[in-house]
Amino acid sequence: MPISTPLTSLLGIRHPVLSAPMAIIAGSRLVTAVGNAGGFGILGGGYGDKDWLVQEAAKLQQCSAPFGIGFITWSMAKQPELLDIALEANPRAIMLSFGDPKPFAPRIKAAGCLLICQVQTEDMAKQALDAGADILIAQGTEAGGHGASRTTLDIVPAIVDFAAGRVPVVAAGGLADGRGLAAMLMMGASGVLLGTRFYASVECDGADEAKKRICAATTSDTVRGMVFDISRKIWWPAPFTARTLINDHARRWAGRETELVHNVEAVAAAYAAERDAGNYDVAAVFAGQAVGLIHDIPPAAEIVERLVSEADQILAGRRNFQAA
Amino acid sequence: MPISTPLTSLLGIRHPVLSAPMAIIAGSRLVTAVGNAGGFGILGGGYGDKDWLVQEAAKLQQCSAPFGIGFITWSMAKQPELLDIALEANPRAIMLSFGDPKPFAPRIKAAGCLLICQVQTEDMAKQALDAGADILIAQGTEAGGHGASRTTLDIVPAIVDFAAGRVPVVAAGGLADGRGLAAMLMMGASGVLLGTRFYASVECDGADEAKKRICAATTSDTVRGMVFDISRKIWWPAPFTARTLINDHARRWAGRETELVHNVEAVAAAYAAERDAGNYDVAAVFAGQAVGLIHDIPPAAEIVERLVSEADQILAGRRNFQAA
Repeated sequence: MPISTPLTSLLGIRHPVLSAPMAIIAGSRLVTAVGNAGGFGILGGGYGDKDWLVQEAAKLQQCSAPFGIGFITWSMAKQPELLDIALEANPRAIMLSFGDPKPFAPRIKAAGCLLICQVQTEDMAKQALDAGADILIAQGTEAGGHGASRTTLDIVPAIVDFAAGRVPVVAAGGLADGRGLAAMLMMGASGVLLGTRFYASVECDGADEAKKRICAATTSDTVRGMVFDISRKIWWPAPFTARTLINDHARRWAGRETELVHNVEAVAAAYAAERDAGNYDVAAVFAGQAVGLIHDIPPAAEIVERLVSEADQILAGRRNFQAA
Repeated sequence: MPISTPLTSLLGIRHPVLSAPMAIIAGSRLVTAVGNAGGFGILGGGYGDKDWLVQEAAKLQQCSAPFGIGFITWSMAKQPELLDIALEANPRAIMLSFGDPKPFAPRIKAAGCLLICQVQTEDMAKQALDAGADILIAQGTEAGGHGASRTTLDIVPAIVDFAAGRVPVVAAGGLADGRGLAAMLMMGASGVLLGTRFYASVECDGADEAKKRICAATTSDTVRGMVFDISRKIWWPAPFTARTLINDHARRWAGRETELVHNVEAVAAAYAAERDAGNYDVAAVFAGQAVGLIHDIPPAAEIVERLVSEADQILAGRRNFQAA
C-alpha cells in the first residue's frame, strides 16, 4: 500500500523514497528506474561535467516519471551554465548540497522547478529556507560520500523541529531498508534519501567491483575523513568530509593527512593511475554505514518495492510491537 | 494506550521505557518514580560504592514496581560481593555494561533474576547471549556517559538482526522523546533506555546545576572522549569513552590527552577539588546528544507519560504520514 506524505504530494510520486545524486554513477538509467518504480531518482551532476550532463539529460527526455538533478553547490558555482542545461531537461526538482543555494534559487524557481536543499546543521537549514527551499534533506554522518558530523538520529528531529512544518524534511544517512523508512517517518521525516543502497543496484553506473565491495562490507568497514579528497586534490570547504569504504589507501594515510598534503603531487598522480586502472584497493568507494545492511545488487525497482513493502508491514504493526 | 512488546511482557511493566543506571545519580528515588509510572527504573550501581548500594537497595524494599540494578561490569568485578547485595534486594533484573558478563551470569540466574546486557558491537552481543542474557541493550554513540563509536541508527538494527528474535533488544543513545521511542520500535527494538532525559528529572540525584546545563545545551555541546576519565584516574578499557557536556576542562584538554596523562597527578587533584566544590566548568556532566531535545526538569512520571502518549499518537498514524 502506498505511504502518502507531504513529500509524495509535492513531488507527485507514489513512494517517499529518493535515490541520492551520487556523482556520475547516479545516471539516467538509475534515475529512470527509480522513477518508474514510483520513487524519485536524482541525477548525480556532482562537481559538474558538462558533456556527461548534456548526454544524461538528453536520455532523461525519455523518462516519463518526475525526476531531479543534483549538484555539489560550491563546485557547480564555478560553471553556473550547468544549471541552465539541467533546467532545460525539465526536472521536477533541482537538489543542491554543500554550499549556499541562494545565488541559484531564483533561476530554479523561475523555471517552475522545486528546490531541494541538503543540510547538516540548523544554520544550513536556515540558509536553505531563506533561499526558498521547498524540501530539506537532513543528512546524518552515517551517509556515504560527503557530509558532516552529526548523526542521523540527532539531525533529523533537529531539522524537523527547525522546519516546523514549513517544508517536508527527508532523512538521509545510514538508511537502506524498510525499517529505516518507517523509523524516519516516526521521527517526523516525510521520506528517505538513499545513496549506498542504490549504488548496489543493477542500474547504477558504478563499477561492478565497487558494488561487490559494498555487498561484502560491514558498517565498521567505512571511515569518514579527508584522505581521498586530498588524494584527488579536491579542496572541499569545511565542515564537509567524505565517508568511504576502508581500503589500503585509506589505512595507509589515516591520521597522516598533513604528510599527505606535503606529498600531494606524487600521491595524486599515483592515485589517479590506480583509480583509472580500477584498483579499488587504492581508489575510493564512496559508501555509507548502511553497507552493513546491503548484501545484494538487485534492480532499483526491487529496492523501492522492498523498502515500501517492509515499511508498510512494520507501520501496520504486524511486527514486534502492538499498540494495544 | 499501552504499547506492548516482548520487553514489557518479560519485565512485567506497562511501558517499554527504561531509565539508565546512571552511576550514583540514578538512585532509589528515580527508580521508584519510573517504576510507579509504568516504566522500568534501573539503580545506578556504577563503579560500586558499597555503602551507597546498601542504603539505596534498602529504600527499594518500599518500591512495589519491578526494578533493576545496574553495574559497570569491569569495576564491579573487583568487589563481586556487591552483586550479592544487589540480588538480596530482589530486583527483577541485573543490568551489566562494559565487560564480560559471564562470571556473574550464573549467580544472577540462580537468584531467579533476569540478565540485561548493554552492548556496542555484535561481538559483545554474542558474548552476552553466550552468557545467557535475557535482554540486550544496543547502545549508540549518541549516548551520554560511557559507550563506543557506532551510531544508534547503525547498532540497533545490527543487534536486532544478530539477536534474531532470541531476546528483546532495547535501543539506547540519543533518545529523549516519543518520536525516538516510535522510531526504535520500527527498527525492531522492543523498547528504549534513556539516561540524559531522566537526568533532567525531579527525582534524579544529580546536581541542580548539572540539570540546568543539560536543559541549556544543544547536541553540538557534547563530546565523546577520554579527558574526564583520565582526569579522574579511572582507567577504562577499550573501546569505551565517555560523552559529556563540553565545558572549560573539556576544551582545555581536547586533543592533548597524552599531555594530560603526563600531568595526571596534579590535574586529578585539581579536578577532584573543583568537582567537590560543584564547579561544572571543570567537573563533568555526563550527558548524551539528546540534550538538544531536553528543555525542562519534570517529574520522571511525566517524562514516561509524555514519551508514551507522543509515541502512541505517532504510531496511530495521526502525524505526518498516512498508510493509505
